[in-house]
Amino acid sequence: MRTLSSSAVRGTAADVLARADALGAISEEDGRLTRRLATPALARAGDLVSGWMEDAGLVVRRDAIGNVIGRTGDADVPPLVLGSHLDTVPDAGRYDGALGVLLAIAVVDRLAAPPPIPLEVVAFADEEGVRFGVPYLGSAAYSGRFEPEWLDLVDADGITLRVAIERAGADPALLLEVLEPGLACYVEAHIEQGPVLEREGLPVGVVSAIAGQTRAAVTIIGRPGHAGTSPMSGRHDALAAASELVLAVERFARESEGLVATVGSLTVSPGASNVIPGEAHLSLDVRHADDGALGQAVAGLRHAATRIATARSVELDWSILRATPAVELAPELRLRLASAVLAEGHEARSLASGAGHDAVILSGVCPAAMLFVRCAGGVSHDPRESVAEADVAVALDVLERFVSAPRARPGPGV
Amino acid sequence: MRTLSSSAVRGTAADVLARADALGAISEEDGRLTRRLATPALARAGDLVSGWMEDAGLVVRRDAIGNVIGRTGDADVPPLVLGSHLDTVPDAGRYDGALGVLLAIAVVDRLAAPPPIPLEVVAFADEEGVRFGVPYLGSAAYSGRFEPEWLDLVDADGITLRVAIERAGADPALLLEVLEPGLACYVEAHIEQGPVLEREGLPVGVVSAIAGQTRAAVTIIGRPGHAGTSPMSGRHDALAAASELVLAVERFARESEGLVATVGSLTVSPGASNVIPGEAHLSLDVRHADDGALGQAVAGLRHAATRIATARSVELDWSILRATPAVELAPELRLRLASAVLAEGHEARSLASGAGHDAVILSGVCPAAMLFVRCAGGVSHDPRESVAEADVAVALDVLERFVSAPRARPGPGV
Repeated sequence: MRTLSSSAVRGTAADVLARADALGAISEEDGRLTRRLATPALARAGDLVSGWMEDAGLVVRRDAIGNVIGRTGDADVPPLVLGSHLDTVPDAGRYDGALGVLLAIAVVDRLAAPPPIPLEVVAFADEEGVRFGVPYLGSAAYSGRFEPEWLDLVDADGITLRVAIERAGADPALLLEVLEPGLACYVEAHIEQGPVLEREGLPVGVVSAIAGQTRAAVTIIGRPGHAGTSPMSGRHDALAAASELVLAVERFARESEGLVATVGSLTVSPGASNVIPGEAHLSLDVRHADDGALGQAVAGLRHAATRIATARSVELDWSILRATPAVELAPELRLRLASAVLAEGHEARSLASGAGHDAVILSGVCPAAMLFVRCAGGVSHDPRESVAEADVAVALDVLERFVSAPRARPGPGV
Repeated sequence: MRTLSSSAVRGTAADVLARADALGAISEEDGRLTRRLATPALARAGDLVSGWMEDAGLVVRRDAIGNVIGRTGDADVPPLVLGSHLDTVPDAGRYDGALGVLLAIAVVDRLAAPPPIPLEVVAFADEEGVRFGVPYLGSAAYSGRFEPEWLDLVDADGITLRVAIERAGADPALLLEVLEPGLACYVEAHIEQGPVLEREGLPVGVVSAIAGQTRAAVTIIGRPGHAGTSPMSGRHDALAAASELVLAVERFARESEGLVATVGSLTVSPGASNVIPGEAHLSLDVRHADDGALGQAVAGLRHAATRIATARSVELDWSILRATPAVELAPELRLRLASAVLAEGHEARSLASGAGHDAVILSGVCPAAMLFVRCAGGVSHDPRESVAEADVAVALDVLERFVSAPRARPGPGV
């Protein structure tokens, strides 16, 4: 780990990485990074970030859920918001969320002149949804979209969100009084969490959309039997049918531009080595940045599953558990961000995000865009998360240029 | 359930089925049939069988492990042994084991004249190996093949086989004094436990061999990743590789005469719906009546697994857990049994057994053969086990003919 040197020059990539190290040391657990909503660890991380915001000249407040918000300029003018989240998954890396917050602060650090419009920097208190099972609680609270019933959500220890907020010293009732804020736009920088930029040798990319996601549960019921006495010809092996479906899902997604589809879970019953599988239960996760393409893919996969089940005379049950639509990020804002990338001398690669982000919520109240930063091996939600200082420097330059010239002409390339 | 009518004519198929019903009502558990070694239920079943043996004119003894043995004729002449087992799996059917014992007794019931050589009818006390985890304890004890260390085997309640035998009122030390018996031959009737005879419309079949079995544990290690952010092209999905292997196993066995191969268990880790599987663990069960063919099949499957792993750049671990050689049943005895089937007007279908039987042990001490009886749907180890009275009648006729004419000329058809 780097140390937070007092000699680090503020507003540099080196300073951003040193601050990420310092934040990464603040955890609920010894030896690994876990920082969930309304915990003392998250509050300490907020204190550190709050101090850095003040050092950058921002006026800082903290809302009831724990979002840390730093503001510069006229409070009556809708601001350009830069931000990301401070909470983490269990055993996390140092950059998922934190990098976007630190880049935003560093951009303010670097500004020689006041920007064309006021800036607001936000460190959201909950994006991962680990503690209460509902993601985006921080950005929802900030955006005036907090649902009253969420106060009754319960964590693994039986503590409600209401009580957790009270124990953190805040008043949960205030969350219900937040009106939709007047915002000019929202721009979030985040590690890619995928391998596309690394594979293409690019430091940053402009996010086109946040993929829609359909989750399904698939059950295949065949006929169990004795593995030694049942000839191959008369079998109705649920696992063999499930295996065909796993490969059909893979083949279908490989052949469909922009589609990812995954069977992450498969269980077999009875599951004994000498018994032909009678049942198989699969999870299916399908994502695409275009809702039409996603719908077509899910229908196509269901058709493939039906064909497999019919050919093998096994029963098929197909249940959609959740269907989240895609979020297209604001075209005009994406063009401006791409222009800044081009002006810094890099290809303005447009790519969809397969994971969700705070920009999903913010895009409901203002134009939103995202800048992805290359991460090593596409690894995230893992202590091995890593970003290169040179890439952080590019992201800083791009964001500074974007903030300083918000009315620049769109360029080609998106 | 049929009742054990006092008017049932001894030595008929109807009587055999009525006795199977009566035996099937003797269980360790209410409402389902479970009868394990050295339990009061097995002892009561042995008492019933012992009485039927005495009614048939046999001289009955019980050995230390609980085998019930009925003898007719000169004790100095090596006997022709007919038998099967009285123990069951949990929640068993009424015919697996019991049918062979009851057919043997009924054959003796039917004999008008003394057979050409002495007969011994045996009801073995343990074939399934459910209680102590080692199969064939009954036939091993009868054959002088009981291993001293088996007395230290422990059941699920922590009771050793030694103590279980003592509690059943017998002396475990006697098991170690049994010499290899002088036997002319062993013939066992048993339900097929498979669908071949039913599919071919045949009441009985002559078993050619008891299949050899290889069990392997296969681990595939790929690379886990985020289901939303990892493009299809760079994935190393352990479940997709495992699915290819499951289908390769199925295809290989379908194309190989006499081979059965089964992946009965498959587990995936981490096993979350939104994470690409990083590891998959599979069981593999491969059986063939010919050891050479079995060995070739296992080698071929391993080769297929290696090809799949190489093509997908995933790691493969392949461990053989057990390799049991095939047992070929005695050719001369099979011919004589087939001749009896033909003489009764039926096709003498030769078929391998995928499951193990007491004949595996007996074939180590004398020529052994088996007659399979058609069972409904190939179902066994299940309360729905079922046999037709007409098929039982055919089996009785075949066995009576075989016993009465042990020196008949071999016929064609095997």
